[in-house]
Amino acid sequence: MLPCPSSVRSQSMQANNWLISSGGRRGALVDLFRESTSPVRSRVVVTDVSRLSAAGQHADEFELVPRISADNFLSETLRISKKHGCSTIVPTIDPEIAVLARARAQFRQHGVDIWVSSPQVAELGWDKWDLYRWLIEAGYPTIDTQEIAESRLVPFAGRVVAKPRTGSSSIGVLIVDNVESLRVSALTDDYILQRFAPGIEVTVDVAVDERGTVLATVPRRRLEVRAGEVSKGVTIHVPEIELLVRDMVTSLPGAYGVLNVQVIYDPETNSPKILEINPRFGGGYPLSHAAGGDLIGAMLRSKTGDTASETWRPGTVMLRYDEAKFYADQEFVLSPWS
Amino acid sequence: MLPCPSSVRSQSMQANNWLISSGGRRGALVDLFRESTSPVRSRVVVTDVSRLSAAGQHADEFELVPRISADNFLSETLRISKKHGCSTIVPTIDPEIAVLARARAQFRQHGVDIWVSSPQVAELGWDKWDLYRWLIEAGYPTIDTQEIAESRLVPFAGRVVAKPRTGSSSIGVLIVDNVESLRVSALTDDYILQRFAPGIEVTVDVAVDERGTVLATVPRRRLEVRAGEVSKGVTIHVPEIELLVRDMVTSLPGAYGVLNVQVIYDPETNSPKILEINPRFGGGYPLSHAAGGDLIGAMLRSKTGDTASETWRPGTVMLRYDEAKFYADQEFVLSPWS
Repeated sequence: MLPCPSSVRSQSMQANNWLISSGGRRGALVDLFRESTSPVRSRVVVTDVSRLSAAGQHADEFELVPRISADNFLSETLRISKKHGCSTIVPTIDPEIAVLARARAQFRQHGVDIWVSSPQVAELGWDKWDLYRWLIEAGYPTIDTQEIAESRLVPFAGRVVAKPRTGSSSIGVLIVDNVESLRVSALTDDYILQRFAPGIEVTVDVAVDERGTVLATVPRRRLEVRAGEVSKGVTIHVPEIELLVRDMVTSLPGAYGVLNVQVIYDPETNSPKILEINPRFGGGYPLSHAAGGDLIGAMLRSKTGDTASETWRPGTVMLRYDEAKFYADQEFVLSPWS
Repeated sequence: MLPCPSSVRSQSMQANNWLISSGGRRGALVDLFRESTSPVRSRVVVTDVSRLSAAGQHADEFELVPRISADNFLSETLRISKKHGCSTIVPTIDPEIAVLARARAQFRQHGVDIWVSSPQVAELGWDKWDLYRWLIEAGYPTIDTQEIAESRLVPFAGRVVAKPRTGSSSIGVLIVDNVESLRVSALTDDYILQRFAPGIEVTVDVAVDERGTVLATVPRRRLEVRAGEVSKGVTIHVPEIELLVRDMVTSLPGAYGVLNVQVIYDPETNSPKILEINPRFGGGYPLSHAAGGDLIGAMLRSKTGDTASETWRPGTVMLRYDEAKFYADQEFVLSPWS
């Protein structure tokens, strides 16, 4: 059991009180949560390890938490949830998924739900080699993949991509025209090799309820990427992609909450391939929401048995720009170099 | 003379009608221009080479222009200015600075001002080697720099930075602990070598009127950078930096408009060094503005002879996050892969 300081007088849990964990710069997501439950007044609490969080400035309450790797990350997160009566925790970054996935049952005993998938799905989201093996076994189309040991013996011909089997963004990714120009021997054992797949990258936002029912699938195409995050995108209507993702997510061992699935689609062969699963809100979720796909509302309605599929508008374009929150920080007045 | 199609019925020029050139994702800047001239109703026209411009969605009018390198970039920009009665053009990206700097006098004959410095200052902003020589000659502190040919003969000792003498962001930049680990012979002749300078990077937003009077200097520290652009920053009060930048900008051969100067400051030695000049609005300008340093208003007031220095608040923190404009684009409904 998690320790829970008895000195904290907790509010009663409210269905429309949210805790967005590791809020970072997700200011727009905080706003969407607040709007999703109107006209009922909702409250959004944001936690972060740094006080310099834009999402924290958007929130009704902002609380600092220890690092995810710290012993008291979970107990502090639970304490803050109870203090503010938050009945739902929404994780936002990869490193906390596995930690929160393992704690979900315990949090439920305290009346706090976490929109996070099972530890098995967390693992498939984290480890590309495990995901590849699961997809092949379950019969879903994906990119041909090898462990680095295998690729040293019988490498793929043609253009290949080498990447760490775990990890986010494009850190450590190498693309070469043929495997001979790759120093495979120099790559560490945690690398995998993938055949380069021609096509267009499509991200699908998915909402899944507690019984594993898929409530929504919204495919959006990345038109421009900036710092690993979509900066221009558009929702697109491609039934092949939605059907594949809906089927695959239903087969996952315990998907729950809002997640996103990366797909490579080759318009010439009409074939989508599954590339990656992120069992958390994608950074580009506000586009699906703006297109009418309110996955937050769909999750809430599913609690009352309403599992109708969300409808949304294709051809909705998102053009991102930098907005900012500003505040006065006396520390930098006293010492500019602090 | 620039050709100007006679078929366009131009509006009369309005002091508070703006053309923001190459608007891209500068949505926040468009908003600041509109607010700067309230309560008088202002209009902001944005141009861009792509229809997918967030700034274009913020503008009162959005117009496509040819590429900067195209023969008719200038004539189209002038035509659009006149069509909408824009008396001032505000450039925003490096590649257009030199082109607009050379055209400024011609545009003035049509009643259109461009907030851009002289071609000589444009050159100093573009070419790091030219800037170094100018700074040394004028007696301003900067980073020790060598042309690559010189560095092949007598290289600097210790940690060095190699970078293309022209170019933006950090493209092509190499940092090594000692010059021996750098294959200097492999670098092309357009590279320069700089001694690595310890310290903290500070950007100073500067407004300069037509007589070369500096109206404002707002130093802001970069706390976090994302995709080459400040994502967290804070205004700081450091008189040594402001005095140096004010003096240097006054000595420049024809600074005009809002520009920014990059400085490296070493708190241990109390010595600022000038690193770079960008003769255009910096991406982080909204922070200076939020701190009370309204450089747009200062430029406008200078027209009526008011050249009082802008005051602003140190310790103003900016935390950026992604906002977006959304619109329906029928083209992607008809063909998702267009």
